[in-house]
Amino acid sequence: MRALVVHAAKDLRADDWQDEAPGPGQVLVRTAAGGICGSDLHYYHHGGFGTVRLKEPMVLGHEVSGRVAELGAGVTGLAPGDLVAINPSRPCGACRYCREGTPNHCMDMRFYGSAMPFPHIQGAFREALVVDAAQCVKAEGITAGEAAMAEPLSVALHAIRRAGPLLGKRVLVTGCGPIGVLTVLAARRAGAAEIVATDIEDQPLTHAMTAGADRAVNVMKEADALAGYGADKGHFDLLCEASGAQAALVAGIGALRPRGVVVQLGLGGDMTLPMMQVTAKELELRGSFRFHEEFPLAVEMIAKGLIDVKPLITHTIGFDDAVKAFELAGDRSRVMKAQIAFN
Amino acid sequence: MRALVVHAAKDLRADDWQDEAPGPGQVLVRTAAGGICGSDLHYYHHGGFGTVRLKEPMVLGHEVSGRVAELGAGVTGLAPGDLVAINPSRPCGACRYCREGTPNHCMDMRFYGSAMPFPHIQGAFREALVVDAAQCVKAEGITAGEAAMAEPLSVALHAIRRAGPLLGKRVLVTGCGPIGVLTVLAARRAGAAEIVATDIEDQPLTHAMTAGADRAVNVMKEADALAGYGADKGHFDLLCEASGAQAALVAGIGALRPRGVVVQLGLGGDMTLPMMQVTAKELELRGSFRFHEEFPLAVEMIAKGLIDVKPLITHTIGFDDAVKAFELAGDRSRVMKAQIAFN
Amino acid sequence: MRALVVHAAKDLRADDWQDEAPGPGQVLVRTAAGGICGSDLHYYHHGGFGTVRLKEPMVLGHEVSGRVAELGAGVTGLAPGDLVAINPSRPCGACRYCREGTPNHCMDMRFYGSAMPFPHIQGAFREALVVDAAQCVKAEGITAGEAAMAEPLSVALHAIRRAGPLLGKRVLVTGCGPIGVLTVLAARRAGAAEIVATDIEDQPLTHAMTAGADRAVNVMKEADALAGYGADKGHFDLLCEASGAQAALVAGIGALRPRGVVVQLGLGGDMTLPMMQVTAKELELRGSFRFHEEFPLAVEMIAKGLIDVKPLITHTIGFDDAVKAFELAGDRSRVMKAQIAFN
Amino acid sequence: MRALVVHAAKDLRADDWQDEAPGPGQVLVRTAAGGICGSDLHYYHHGGFGTVRLKEPMVLGHEVSGRVAELGAGVTGLAPGDLVAINPSRPCGACRYCREGTPNHCMDMRFYGSAMPFPHIQGAFREALVVDAAQCVKAEGITAGEAAMAEPLSVALHAIRRAGPLLGKRVLVTGCGPIGVLTVLAARRAGAAEIVATDIEDQPLTHAMTAGADRAVNVMKEADALAGYGADKGHFDLLCEASGAQAALVAGIGALRPRGVVVQLGLGGDMTLPMMQVTAKELELRGSFRFHEEFPLAVEMIAKGLIDVKPLITHTIGFDDAVKAFELAGDRSRVMKAQIAFN
Repeated sequence: MRALVVHAAKDLRADDWQDEAPGPGQVLVRTAAGGICGSDLHYYHHGGFGTVRLKEPMVLGHEVSGRVAELGAGVTGLAPGDLVAINPSRPCGACRYCREGTPNHCMDMRFYGSAMPFPHIQGAFREALVVDAAQCVKAEGITAGEAAMAEPLSVALHAIRRAGPLLGKRVLVTGCGPIGVLTVLAARRAGAAEIVATDIEDQPLTHAMTAGADRAVNVMKEADALAGYGADKGHFDLLCEASGAQAALVAGIGALRPRGVVVQLGLGGDMTLPMMQVTAKELELRGSFRFHEEFPLAVEMIAKGLIDVKPLITHTIGFDDAVKAFELAGDRSRVMKAQIAFN
Repeated sequence: MRALVVHAAKDLRADDWQDEAPGPGQVLVRTAAGGICGSDLHYYHHGGFGTVRLKEPMVLGHEVSGRVAELGAGVTGLAPGDLVAINPSRPCGACRYCREGTPNHCMDMRFYGSAMPFPHIQGAFREALVVDAAQCVKAEGITAGEAAMAEPLSVALHAIRRAGPLLGKRVLVTGCGPIGVLTVLAARRAGAAEIVATDIEDQPLTHAMTAGADRAVNVMKEADALAGYGADKGHFDLLCEASGAQAALVAGIGALRPRGVVVQLGLGGDMTLPMMQVTAKELELRGSFRFHEEFPLAVEMIAKGLIDVKPLITHTIGFDDAVKAFELAGDRSRVMKAQIAFN
Repeated sequence: MRALVVHAAKDLRADDWQDEAPGPGQVLVRTAAGGICGSDLHYYHHGGFGTVRLKEPMVLGHEVSGRVAELGAGVTGLAPGDLVAINPSRPCGACRYCREGTPNHCMDMRFYGSAMPFPHIQGAFREALVVDAAQCVKAEGITAGEAAMAEPLSVALHAIRRAGPLLGKRVLVTGCGPIGVLTVLAARRAGAAEIVATDIEDQPLTHAMTAGADRAVNVMKEADALAGYGADKGHFDLLCEASGAQAALVAGIGALRPRGVVVQLGLGGDMTLPMMQVTAKELELRGSFRFHEEFPLAVEMIAKGLIDVKPLITHTIGFDDAVKAFELAGDRSRVMKAQIAFN
Repeated sequence: MRALVVHAAKDLRADDWQDEAPGPGQVLVRTAAGGICGSDLHYYHHGGFGTVRLKEPMVLGHEVSGRVAELGAGVTGLAPGDLVAINPSRPCGACRYCREGTPNHCMDMRFYGSAMPFPHIQGAFREALVVDAAQCVKAEGITAGEAAMAEPLSVALHAIRRAGPLLGKRVLVTGCGPIGVLTVLAARRAGAAEIVATDIEDQPLTHAMTAGADRAVNVMKEADALAGYGADKGHFDLLCEASGAQAALVAGIGALRPRGVVVQLGLGGDMTLPMMQVTAKELELRGSFRFHEEFPLAVEMIAKGLIDVKPLITHTIGFDDAVKAFELAGDRSRVMKAQIAFN
């Protein structure tokens, strides 16, 4: 089979990759759709991000769906031909954090396509994949592309769960890439009464409006748009910061009411924050990192029509044009989510 | 003007009632729509409920909307002709519970149409009403009937808020009168992944399905329908008990998973509960009583189209036929919510 | 070796029992102290409780400490001679509840000395015990008797954790057996501002006062003592119900303020509750069942002198007099905690 | 009477001040003890802090106790001669935040001795003070100095309440001025299993140990002392940051375990934070600002002997030497809390 392997910045190849057979409790899946994520783009364009750098060739990809091809011994509940979304999160199940019910903090996590440990954790952009049956969530009645959206949707669902109850709350979402727009969808689904979204491009904001935002603000064009929300100590109950940009976080903090909550899910480096405001308004700033048990939920929400991810899939590109797909995927003025169609 | 006064069980009259003029900070409202609630029916049919008994004639009603007719001194933000939903909750604002932010537990509450203190708190089924401006929530773009639904919707929103985060949760709603069906709507709005509703009549269950339930069960016909949910220690994360019936609560407890939550919003008397299950599954049983700050939110959710209360309003009856309306309102096989149309 | 085996009600014998050798990751422990718990007494006096009945002979006991005698392969951090408290909770680690971080709801729990599944889970009142190293918590600087108190203290710590933050709260503890008195200790440790304890005997109340209660009430002598706390909608923030008696729960509910919490940790059967009060005061009734991660914490709190369990150990009786110990242990007018001293 | 008025940086005078008589619901109190707080010192040494600057002469002080001298009409529950702690927090009781039960975010707060609005809110370092009866908390069986500690203790209690349940938690306190040491006391009282305290001076750390810390670290001498706590993703459940120093917050973040909580109660300016750690470890950073309902609790905890504030009162200086007291109070190598003794 072939796999999409990044060897270095700007060096992405469809390499031959060894075939595998499913062991007990495992399943062989023929990959169907694979979404290109921001971290994939970082490896492709820059060879990593922050202190996380490629040290050996690595298969990219962690947003994948596929069709069951073969069952290992003892697997029940799945049959050849089933469309499944594949959970890329593989915690150890035994460390203290797994035992405490927070497997996203597993001390021995093997999340697909991550250069954080060495040897790297190989990714899922392969034509076929042997996975644990427990990673597979049946995706009936939806497309392979939608199934592959379960992964980024899980990130958004986890972030919204970190926010606590949302019914009737006023929510600001900063950064409207796929994660930000999925957060708008999840916030609306969770009962937000008002959602304002910001970005520095127009196209993502169009998606945010489609996803249910009440107002979308291009902060490059309307620099002071959020300032008005700071009157009477602030307006929003919740800021979902999905851009990783310090300016967005700082502006959002000013627009939060006392006891307001920030969920920081955008990954960024060091940021300088107005701690006097954080303290005096008694804000709560919570990190949100990946997900785990939200994955089957994401599939269920899509399958039941409770969250519609289809408008986000703006581009679907064949495996043979994968490099082109990666080039395209970085263009925020045109692309929301680009997916690779396997086979 | 006239008011709907209950003098005793089955003795409801349209009596003359004194006109009032709005004082400073007050507003005169011409009543438009008034929903008949279960407690109104109890006063009408039985002269009270439990230990709460009529001791003097009392105007009924607390689910009302109307049009602003006259402004008292100092009132801003309202204009004659405005349609407003009227918050029947009038806490003192000064007692310990008000100061703690739980005004629904006010020690000097004056909730419309309540025989609990003596003299009784007169209700809102009058042709005109002088109210505090703070009780009025502008209801733009919706009907008077929808505006009058803000009150029972507030009860449901409060109950769902008591439940904590609902995104992705599995919810059982027992009892599908107006409060139960509004709870189904609110639970769906708050992101429930699965909703099962039960009742002992078919018509309420049809409404529950329209409101978004995934499954509706007539427990008179399918007595053991909930038993299957008890496998593997239970299925539901949340039970919203809106019937006030012991049998519903007991059956629901059996269907809850460990750490599951019961929100008890149906009013009932003493109930015998399987405390061994409550303890061993570490369930949480929370009372939910009325509402307060949810009232403007209810109007906003209706006005923004986030919750659609219109299908619940099955009957609208003129003020002159009020007694007929009360007779009709008790027929659960035909009526979901009956409202009185004033003037 | 010998083990304390209950064959039927009132038929407790020191039977011969097979020796075991520790496997990999296991430890052989020579039992030092074993506390007699209420459930042990139920098996001894009645052959079970509720629907849980003895169907075969069963070793009793789950409150034990001992000294490490032999290490299995791969065990680190323990050495022969170490005094250890032994965690009797042995969840599977793999079921959904274990994975969610609530192992006390494990679907395949093997808690020592429990007749709930069949074959029964044999208990820990044996002269030697092979345990997983992970069950052992080193107990330095405390006595074997104190170490054996880690188990019931864990129950109390779990209950207090279920209660949420206690700093400055007003707490009512009903039922002052060992669990109730340990709950008084834990509540005081957790910052309660006021603790009132009730029982139907005087001796347990003396222990409650020693443990830090501000007031102790014998409700057999002062039947209406709690009624005064019901003024102004109630006084207590928290009721820890450790008696399993309906009368205690009902009286406590009347003394709770709006939004007050009940933690039900006493095991009882069906109880008739005033649901109107639960609903109207928006009380929260939470079950508390066993413990898991609190076990090492219990040892640490004892060892650091943060909780003093010594006054509770009123009787220590040699293994050869075990039957006498069981007879004595049921006398609440004299005994708080009776422990068996092994070898 | 006289009052301690700051006219500008380093210009503190005992000025004549107008006498007042208590109106209805008010009380005249002869001031007994007044603690000098960090904000008082900022006004004295620098004429303000950050953007908060003196624009007119202002009486300092907000940590005061006194004896009731005269009752206004309608005051009950107090008698001349009573020692009272005086709550310096005077929220409006009517704004949205007061109504929501968060009066520390009052939009019209009149907290003693604050230059934030103009005209400034005059402070409580006066020989006599007319206060609302509701501000007075009777302080029986404790000294005037202890009663004056109720205010800073309230700050610490509020911070610990913001932290959520503490029973068995591992706590790091950075900054051991009076607020930090009181936080150590409150954390111990709330059931922390382990407390580590840091400062850049030795004397405050001695106080932290007296207050119950398990370990005290002078980070000027042991720069890397906290680094070891970062192993296995971190050690502490809670960081109480009471220094307002960026370095302390950053080091503490590194020592927190996943899902750990920061309560930021030290007031500082902008700080640069490692947001990647905050996000990836899903930390929660919560501001804590002043207090309100904790004030009577603080008095109760002191009076019941549950928290011992006496060791913190290192210096008591007569009113006539007030300027000397202010000079002394800034010397962290010698002074923990300096109080002024009135009359």
